[in-house]
Order: sequence, then structure tokens, then C-alpha cells
Amino acid sequence: MLLDLKDVYQKEKDLLGKEIILQGWVRNHRKQKEFGFIDFNDGTSFKNLQVVYDSSLKSFDDIQKIHIGSAITVKGTIVESEGGKQDYELKTIEIKVEGDSPEDYPIQPKRHTREFLREQAYLRPRTNLFNAVFRVRSIAAMAIHEYFQSNNYVYVHTPLITTADCEGSDQMFKITTLDFNKLPYVDGKVDMSKDLFGKTAFVTGTGQLHGEAFAMAYKKIYTFGPTFRTEKSNTKTHANEFWMIEPEIAFCDLDGLMDIEEDMLKFVVNYVLEKCPLEIDFFDQFVEVGLKDKLTKLVNSKFTRITHHEVVDILKKADVKWEFEPSYSDDIAKEHEKYITEYFNGPVFITNWPKDIKAWYMKLNADNETVAAVDLEVPGAGELMGGSQREEDYDKLLKRIDEMHVDKETVDWFCNLRKFGGCYHSGFGMGFERLLIYLTGVDNIRDVIPFPRTPGSCDY
Amino acid sequence: MLLDLKDVYQKEKDLLGKEIILQGWVRNHRKQKEFGFIDFNDGTSFKNLQVVYDSSLKSFDDIQKIHIGSAITVKGTIVESEGGKQDYELKTIEIKVEGDSPEDYPIQPKRHTREFLREQAYLRPRTNLFNAVFRVRSIAAMAIHEYFQSNNYVYVHTPLITTADCEGSDQMFKITTLDFNKLPYVDGKVDMSKDLFGKTAFVTGTGQLHGEAFAMAYKKIYTFGPTFRTEKSNTKTHANEFWMIEPEIAFCDLDGLMDIEEDMLKFVVNYVLEKCPLEIDFFDQFVEVGLKDKLTKLVNSKFTRITHHEVVDILKKADVKWEFEPSYSDDIAKEHEKYITEYFNGPVFITNWPKDIKAWYMKLNADNETVAAVDLEVPGAGELMGGSQREEDYDKLLKRIDEMHVDKETVDWFCNLRKFGGCYHSGFGMGFERLLIYLTGVDNIRDVIPFPRTPGSCDY
Repeated sequence: MLLDLKDVYQKEKDLLGKEIILQGWVRNHRKQKEFGFIDFNDGTSFKNLQVVYDSSLKSFDDIQKIHIGSAITVKGTIVESEGGKQDYELKTIEIKVEGDSPEDYPIQPKRHTREFLREQAYLRPRTNLFNAVFRVRSIAAMAIHEYFQSNNYVYVHTPLITTADCEGSDQMFKITTLDFNKLPYVDGKVDMSKDLFGKTAFVTGTGQLHGEAFAMAYKKIYTFGPTFRTEKSNTKTHANEFWMIEPEIAFCDLDGLMDIEEDMLKFVVNYVLEKCPLEIDFFDQFVEVGLKDKLTKLVNSKFTRITHHEVVDILKKADVKWEFEPSYSDDIAKEHEKYITEYFNGPVFITNWPKDIKAWYMKLNADNETVAAVDLEVPGAGELMGGSQREEDYDKLLKRIDEMHVDKETVDWFCNLRKFGGCYHSGFGMGFERLLIYLTGVDNIRDVIPFPRTPGSCDY
Repeated sequence: MLLDLKDVYQKEKDLLGKEIILQGWVRNHRKQKEFGFIDFNDGTSFKNLQVVYDSSLKSFDDIQKIHIGSAITVKGTIVESEGGKQDYELKTIEIKVEGDSPEDYPIQPKRHTREFLREQAYLRPRTNLFNAVFRVRSIAAMAIHEYFQSNNYVYVHTPLITTADCEGSDQMFKITTLDFNKLPYVDGKVDMSKDLFGKTAFVTGTGQLHGEAFAMAYKKIYTFGPTFRTEKSNTKTHANEFWMIEPEIAFCDLDGLMDIEEDMLKFVVNYVLEKCPLEIDFFDQFVEVGLKDKLTKLVNSKFTRITHHEVVDILKKADVKWEFEPSYSDDIAKEHEKYITEYFNGPVFITNWPKDIKAWYMKLNADNETVAAVDLEVPGAGELMGGSQREEDYDKLLKRIDEMHVDKETVDWFCNLRKFGGCYHSGFGMGFERLLIYLTGVDNIRDVIPFPRTPGSCDY
């Protein structure tokens, strides 16, 4: 019976005394004179299985030569462990080496720095830490799909290639089929009409505008896909390629949006706690002490809701020497985010931001000074989601487009959504890596992306 | 009680006589002297709900003025339909117009051509056809995630940006932050070291190489993300941006791969049949007569497995005047694909292809002439999946890399996977749009992508 290790752990007792076959890799190999122990893992489970063999096997000498990292097929019997810390182990009948791993294999069973492992990006998922991180990444992605699908949302694949530069073309990558060294010119300028789409094309940093069009047909939609930014920042939280989730909901105001954000986040955290208990325990022990408590607490908490104005009030009253002075008309700084989440001891929704520091499509409040935007700040990870009610009034939207110098022509169709059965609606964006940093405690974005892309760094 | 239309249809009987609130759009509006009928839809269900109102309502005159396409909030009571074809309808208590839609609203309740609707890409999901297509797209995507997750696969987000041009850089978009009109030069050539990643970067057309690295850690992985090709073809099956699924499985040979492909496809088809019965009925009636039979039959069939050589035998014996002469050393043409699927009256796996027409990483068979590749051909849609066992022998792989003029340096790490605990393994790719064309009968790729990108065409 050929099994995945995950399935073995789900029915250990039923398998007691049964012969099974497993295929995977040697994580560690301890040899004694008459015995040997292989820490076996096939990647479907965080927990290794101990494979024991003894000198009664004809192939004992060959098995003892098996290197760490080798791929093997092992046939054996599930038995109760003799006084070890593991309950069950595999008593070897036969081991076949499928692929050797030489002694200079970089991933030896010892502590490697994350910097070293970043340079071995193609091998690092074989380590405990990264194996756990990227499984949580997969499970959290599934949690997001399950949440939205079970709540009647439609998953929309919004396009990445765009010829509209309404985000500001300097923040977007240009994409081209032209040969840089044989560019066509007209009137002294590069003739972009010769490019594949007949004009300059970009890869976009958001699917929101297209998402709104679909929300006006399906009421509730979400996107989940890769996103690109050209930022030249080498920080722990910036990458040039990352994944985003952007739900958009018709007939939903700012309060309704916060309900959805809170509900979704709790669902995802709970899902990961249930599906990845060993991984979370590992992070809790070795990466962020207290992580499990933090996550469990979040699931059971009620998120605070407070306006930007009230936040600044609190910051101004605080007995703290700020690096950045809190202001009613400015963004809040990292130090402020930290203070506020600690002040409320949990996640905080901050609403009604000054219009000048937020995007042109956000709904203008009656005060004409603030917009119905909301950022969710979580303890330890800062801003996790950003959203807003959208401006549904055609004339007000056009006025904001003028004021903010957006190229009206490229968003003409988007504005028309307000003319043809438009309605009040809201949406938010969540950076998937930001969520993973929060879920795992791993604090560098390069360590939660399989093959990260950052300025000057695009290996593999 | 605020409900989604989908939920109304799932518990109609329980709701009989109950007051509910719905929010959505007016698809049609028929007015009589004392009565009115609104075809209501909120996008969560394919089926409209009939909203009836009569002159006993104070607002009767206002309601009669509601335009097609308008967004409304309607409060009413679920009642049994009086002799109509619908079982249940909503008896209006109150209707509020959330957003008007003028009389020149392009989507009127009449037949529009698909070409016209393509030009209204931001509105077309409000039509029956596209509402059905893009819901099936969402449900099929979920089916794929459910299949792989429930079978212990890890979902991997492989990178899109790459500096390796092993696919052939002329088939990939270049991506840049440089200003085309202010390019930096060194020695008369554009100095790509000044670009964000320090060299020429591309967006890739496959996640396979990176997928293999993760399969060597998790045994079973899949990717599901957007893919780019620069092809300048304006055909029904080509787009420059589309979505791909690329599973990669360690300890899996070609037969095992076919088992997985067949199992997955049946799961997905079955899932869509179960979750989208109304949509499938609609396609069956209006798009591809016999579609439902075709899909039902597929779920219950055993796929044929045959070698490329045997296929050519059959083609040569066939009493057909071919446009392209079948050859043991060539690819098979569309006309051949069609003949073979009709010959076997169902899906056909064609294996062991001439090595020269297949990719460099595919496993060379013992005959030294063919590779362990497999294409799945399905009736009516041609090639749906393409896969292979991968060359796991380091030296043989290097030889193929030389023969096929692949830039060895950029795939060095990929080759090393063979040195460090490599094993026999296989993988395949499935174009998601190809699947959707098969599932819906809609035969133009532009009509199964929300906002399609094709040469010269990147609107919205």
C-alpha cells in the first residue's frame, strides 16, 4: 500500500502491523553498529517518520551508506515505538535509493541561517522552517478561496497587462516585445505603436477597477493573483512581485466592509490553526514566541473601530516623544500604528482618512475633507488590509479625477459603471505576504515567497 | 432578512410567506396597467427571480418607471407563483432604486452578438451567457484547488519575473523600469545593468522549473496562475495573457501521470456539473448542443492510451486525404487530432513523442528517439493537457541541454535537482481557458477571459 506520510499520521492506529510503502527523502540518518535510524519525510507532513532497520536485513550494509538528502522508496511495517518519544515508527523491510545525494549536499541537519538558505532558494523548502512556511502559504491560499466561495463570491481573474497608467506609470513595469537595441523611432521618439498591443503596456499593481465591473454583475467578487510594483526599496516588507487578494462588494458600505474583513481574517486564521497545528507550534517555539496565543486571541476578539481623527487625538495625548508628529491631515507612521494596536491590545480598524492622502476613487464623506477609507492595523504586523467605500456618484468621481490629475480617458469605462445601475459598494486589498508574515512570525517578505524578486535580485 | 438570490433558491420552501430583502439588478421589466413584473438578478444565481408588484402599492407609479439595468433593493414576501412557469416569486412590499440606468444602457434584454459584447467587456458579465461563463470559470478554479488540496498537493506561487531566457526570449515579454526615450547606453548597446534587477528581465510562460524544485520537497505540488506569451496570432485559441495549472509530482512515471490527469479532469467536470447545472443546461441549449452528454460521458469513460507511433499507423491507414501527411517524426496536425478522438470516440492520451519536437527536459526513452511525453486530446477541443516524465539523469539532461542550445548557466540550479536527492518525476500543464472552452462550448478564448489581451487589443 503506497501512502503519503500525511495519511499515515491520520490513521496510524489502523495501520499498526500493516505493510506500507512510502517515497520521500532522508532528512537525517543515525547509524549504530546493529541498528540504524532514518528521519524520513515525503513533504506531505511536517512531522518526520522514524524508519528503523537492523542488521538482520541482508541489505544492512548498503542501507547504512545512504546519504542525507537522498530520495528513497521504503517498504516496512508500522510498529509501536519502543520507548522513544514517537508513538509509531516504520520497521524496514526494504529500502531502495531512487536518487543519491552527495556529502556536499548543502542542506545538512544543522542550523542554517535564513540568509544562507535564501541563496539556496531551490533547496530551502526541504528545511523544517521553509517546509512549514510554504505549506502554510498553500493552506492559507485555500482558506481564502473557501471563505469567499462558500459566501457566494465569484473568483475573477482580472488582467495583469494594461495600457492604462492611472496608477502612475512610474510605479508600474513596462512590458514590451520590442528589441531595446533595435527600437523603432518616429519624430525622434520611440514608436510604441509598433509594440504588440499598439501602445505602451504595463503590468498592473491592482485588479480593483476591473473587479468593480464584475461586482456590478455578481454582487460579490474577489481576485487573488500576482501583483507587481517597481519600488526600489530593499526593506523586509517590500518585494517587486507579490500576491494580492482584492474583494469588491456591491450594496456594501464601510461598516459592512469591516464586518467582512474581520470575518474573513478570523476564518483564515482559524483554518490555518486547524490544518497546520504542527507548523504553528514550530513557529511558536522557534520563530515568534507567543504566536499561537496571538492568533487564538485574534479569532476570539472583537476588532476596535475608530476614526483617523480619534487616533490622532489619542496619539497627541500620549506621553511619547514621537519621531513623526501626529497630524489630522497626515498619514500615521509605523510608530503610531504600533502604539495604537498596543493601546487597544488587538486589531484596530482606522476609518475616515484625510482625502488628500488617499486614492481618487474613494467615497468622499459629507465633511468634504475625509474619505470613507479603512485600514486594518494588527499587532506586530502593521497594516494588513486597506479598503474603502467607493465613490458611486458619477459627478463627484469626475471632480476627484480632475483634482487628482488622473487620465480620464483610460478610466472612462470605470466611471460609466456609475451610470449603468451603479450602487454603493466597497472593497479592500490584502497583501498575501503581509498575511503570511502575520501567520508565521517570519518577518522578512523574502522568506515567505518561494522565489522572491527584489531590486537587483532575480536569481533562479 | 437580507439574502443572496442563491440562498433563496436553496431554501425556497422554508421561505414561503417570509419577508426578505434582496439587492441586485433589473434584468427585464414588463409593465401592465394594474401589475408589473421585474426579472430580478443579483448575480449569485443564474436564474432570475420574478418580482411582482401591483397597483395597491402607493409607490406603484414610481416602480413602473424603473429602467432595465437599474440597481434596486427590494423588500417582499416569497409566494407561490400563480400558474406561471416559476414555482416561487417575490411579492413586492417596497422597492428602492439604488442606481438608475438610462434608456441608452447598452445591455438591453435582446440578443446581442458576442462581437458587440466583447466591445462592452465591462458590462457583458451582466448577460446570461457571460454571467454563466464567468461563474463556471470561478467554480472550475475552485474545483482545481479542491482536487489538488484534498490529494495532499501543495499550491506553489512560482515567480513570473525571471532573468533566465531558457524558453527563448523572443517568446517572452521583456519587463523594464527604464524609460524607452532615455535609455542608458554603454559601448553602443542599452545598458541593462541599470534596470531594476540589474539585467534584462522577462515575464515567464511557465512555472515548471520552479515547480520541480518544490516537488522535490513536497512530493506533489501544483501551480495556478497567469502566464504570458508574445505570440502574434489572432486566432480563436490564442491570447497573450491566460491562466495555467502546472502540477509536478515526484516518484511518478508517465503512467502515473496519466492516472492523475484523468482523475483530475473527471473531478473538475463532475464538480462543475454538480455546482452549475443551470449554466450547463443553458450552454447545452444555446451554445453547444450535446454539451451535457459530452461532459457526462467523459466522467464515465476510460481514456484511451496510445503511442504517437500507433497514432501515425492509424492515420496512415485511414481512408482520408490529409492536408498534412502523417509522419512518425512530426507533430500531429489539428485534422489528425480530430480524427483520432473521433476514432476512439473519447479522450485519448498520446504518448512517446519524437524527441526533436518536444522540450529539452523531457525524459529520453530507451529507444533514444522518443521522449516520455504525453498529450491529452479531447473530442471537440483538441489538446487539453501536455506533460511528460522529466529527465532525472543529470548527464543525459546536460546532453539534451547542449543539443537543444539551452543556456546552461540559467538552468544550473534546475539541473542540480538531479544531484541532490533527485528521483523519477513527472508533470503536466493545462491551459485553464482551454478547459473552459471545453466545459462551456464557447469556442473563442476572448469569451472565456474577463478582459482578454490579444495582439493590438488591450482595452479596458
